[in-house]
Amino acid sequence: MAAAAAAAAAGSAGARRGPVLTPECMNPAIRRVEYAVRGPIVIRATEIEQELRKGVPKPFTEVIKANIGDAHAMGQQPITFLRQVTALCLCPELMKDESLPSDVKERAQRLLEACGGHSAGAYSASPGLQMVRESVARYIERRDGVPANADDIFLSTGASDGIVNMLKLLVCGSGASRTGVLIPIPQYPLYSAALAELEAAQVNYYLAEERCWALDVAELRRALAEGRRRCNPRALCIINPGNPTGQVQSRECIEQVIKFAYEEKLFLLADEVYQDNIYAEGSAFHSFKKVLMELGPPYADSVELASFHSISKGFMGECGLRGGYMEVVNLHPEVKAELSKLVSVRLCPPVPGQMILDTIMDPPKPGEPSYERFQAEKEAVLSALAEKARMTEEIFNRTPGIHCNPVQGAMYSFPARPGRCQTGAPDMFFCMRLLEETGICVVPGSGFGQKEGTYHFRMTILPPTEKLKILLEKLSSFYTKFVQEFS
Amino acid sequence: MAAAAAAAAAGSAGARRGPVLTPECMNPAIRRVEYAVRGPIVIRATEIEQELRKGVPKPFTEVIKANIGDAHAMGQQPITFLRQVTALCLCPELMKDESLPSDVKERAQRLLEACGGHSAGAYSASPGLQMVRESVARYIERRDGVPANADDIFLSTGASDGIVNMLKLLVCGSGASRTGVLIPIPQYPLYSAALAELEAAQVNYYLAEERCWALDVAELRRALAEGRRRCNPRALCIINPGNPTGQVQSRECIEQVIKFAYEEKLFLLADEVYQDNIYAEGSAFHSFKKVLMELGPPYADSVELASFHSISKGFMGECGLRGGYMEVVNLHPEVKAELSKLVSVRLCPPVPGQMILDTIMDPPKPGEPSYERFQAEKEAVLSALAEKARMTEEIFNRTPGIHCNPVQGAMYSFPARPGRCQTGAPDMFFCMRLLEETGICVVPGSGFGQKEGTYHFRMTILPPTEKLKILLEKLSSFYTKFVQEFS
Repeated sequence: MAAAAAAAAAGSAGARRGPVLTPECMNPAIRRVEYAVRGPIVIRATEIEQELRKGVPKPFTEVIKANIGDAHAMGQQPITFLRQVTALCLCPELMKDESLPSDVKERAQRLLEACGGHSAGAYSASPGLQMVRESVARYIERRDGVPANADDIFLSTGASDGIVNMLKLLVCGSGASRTGVLIPIPQYPLYSAALAELEAAQVNYYLAEERCWALDVAELRRALAEGRRRCNPRALCIINPGNPTGQVQSRECIEQVIKFAYEEKLFLLADEVYQDNIYAEGSAFHSFKKVLMELGPPYADSVELASFHSISKGFMGECGLRGGYMEVVNLHPEVKAELSKLVSVRLCPPVPGQMILDTIMDPPKPGEPSYERFQAEKEAVLSALAEKARMTEEIFNRTPGIHCNPVQGAMYSFPARPGRCQTGAPDMFFCMRLLEETGICVVPGSGFGQKEGTYHFRMTILPPTEKLKILLEKLSSFYTKFVQEFS
Repeated sequence: MAAAAAAAAAGSAGARRGPVLTPECMNPAIRRVEYAVRGPIVIRATEIEQELRKGVPKPFTEVIKANIGDAHAMGQQPITFLRQVTALCLCPELMKDESLPSDVKERAQRLLEACGGHSAGAYSASPGLQMVRESVARYIERRDGVPANADDIFLSTGASDGIVNMLKLLVCGSGASRTGVLIPIPQYPLYSAALAELEAAQVNYYLAEERCWALDVAELRRALAEGRRRCNPRALCIINPGNPTGQVQSRECIEQVIKFAYEEKLFLLADEVYQDNIYAEGSAFHSFKKVLMELGPPYADSVELASFHSISKGFMGECGLRGGYMEVVNLHPEVKAELSKLVSVRLCPPVPGQMILDTIMDPPKPGEPSYERFQAEKEAVLSALAEKARMTEEIFNRTPGIHCNPVQGAMYSFPARPGRCQTGAPDMFFCMRLLEETGICVVPGSGFGQKEGTYHFRMTILPPTEKLKILLEKLSSFYTKFVQEFS
């Protein structure tokens, strides 16, 4: 109050009035937030693009942004059926266009009937259009072979939105009793950013790089014990398939994690946005929901789970549309009501993203006019990704000093440079040099977390196959030169 | 820690494991959040709709949701140009459709060129597509006659998203030093909800109902003094045109508010989402930015301002697309960098909403193929709204006991029932009875805040003119009956 009164007095006296909001007096939790996927490297990459446009000479002609899982930006074409349906929903007068298949028109018609005033411009219900929630529930049933209920589905503005909302509900307390959340290291930095913003405690468990980034329950136990010394760990987050690490968890591992969560009374957050992105022989996606239900009681009827999915990844890559969903399992009914209230404050997720989600959850069926094209486009994307996953691993591992685990799933490689790096150059330095000399934009491992003394970077496998090959070879030569220069 | 250990022990011992997340141990700040616009009345309205569909007999045949500013849900048709452009961006193969005007195709082409990989499915830059930020800056310059800079424009997921992000930056401290924010009463409940969630202090200033909901600087001064006794008031929020109150502020009032913010060192948050919705003779919209710049130094170069706009209101009513922007003025450069970082964590606002925003900020010009249709559609919506604003005021004021201020702007009436209500029935009771007996869904005044002892409700003016007339007359008769029954 004294400060406020002084400030007011200074103002009234006509002294030079400084700003209200300064770095020193802004929300300190926001200052602590870090998000490397769009951090300094990416800001510099954008500057370089502008310099190239102005004709500044560089040793390369274009910047390749391999920093973010943004398939369309890398040239992947949208899946036709998804876009035709959404375009028709936005502009129903195009129904008369004879080039559009009948199943596209029929789907657009049904989606519009599900909207207020038959318009995509009306707010949907806050958890999403009922029709789309039903499509999601049926998709989950087909995927898992166990029942799903539309009332447990909350559509979201990308997966990030759902994840942050669940974390918001979980956070409470302060000091040693504040909520802790176990997250993998390396992690996708949305988690560390959200926990910093919410002033919750981040409890790190390390994935085993030497065993293809496997999740080890003994390590969970160690991390939990460490966490309990300084906070109240209440939730366990798993990213499967892994981001940035690309591993696909075995069914056995998932069972162990669920039992661990049961015993230690942890809420499970399963980030499963890469569930369609599985490439390695012998790897398969098992949803936490399916494994939990199949374990039966006491697990199936007590372990709380929120699972997240997105339209931004998979074979569709519709990042710009901002769609996704969360399924909640065993959530306390009153907490579910609080979640419903929380999402209502932001009114609703973007309706076009909900429409795209519907077309993915309920794709064309055999015999329908759009089926063949849809299947062909989907399979072309997924087989190219599988090829690029293999190629990435191979070219990196051919480079002396770089080690890259198999990219079993997701969209990234996370190769390591030597543990005791001859250069000693920190991650950011390496990535910035790479950018300045080759135009290749990747994210330093430090942005995701890594064991002390190890050095990584994350690179997407999304550029077109031929371009990715050139890029990997450029990166490989750069690395060799970099080691010579700095060792 | 003791609690956590006990819980773990109970788990290991195989005792019945209760849920991790219960109403008692969830985030208490989220529990305190209220959002009446989609609260219990609306939940009941949705149930009644389902009952009607099942054939349950009711004294009405449909529910009319006059609770929320959702124009399309009330039957308003989308503006053709906006939708044609966005549909083409989503499905560029429709470029060959000969029914689409050339300026639609040209705009879609330019927007796609501004997108990564020429696809609406790529993430945009986190503050939005540069092309759209430029369109917004040019729009503001035309509106205000003073310079605007695209670097100060942050696109958002509806206006709510921008508002919450600015509040997040402003919040700090705890107890008597925690951030306080002055908000009008009555207010749009996003503000109270966001402040509750962020654990900031809400400092109420009351609008003068007896003077058409005018904002009075003496009342700001009173509120500030009251706030300083319990928190550190750092920001002042203004909603102009008013929601739920519909008043349009005079230029003189805005000048006074700016001088007050300067003297008292307050950050200004100007919610200007209804800037196109001005109906009353003699009322005009003056943006805070324009008035601030025209006041010159020391105001123009020191008062910090964030102004918010949206695609959900105005003549377009594109709520479902979730688009909007915030313009920041005099923001400390490092705080602006922190804002850029904060928005990057959520990657980007929905791209289709950005595209719609572009078409609104940069509409067809005279002589272009879409100009006539665009103007005609826009003017039809705005003149119908003006007519409905007048009709609402008139029919309410014809009803003994109800007083309704002129709806000068925005989309709502906020009529009062007698201060010392004969019935004593609280707001919620009145609105619930109204819903059950007539199918009309309105929001109790308590959801927005009101002076103690006064009773209001908020009703949109959005239903089609003929329907609105019937609705107002039904409401008027219901009120007369209600007063007889409960007095």
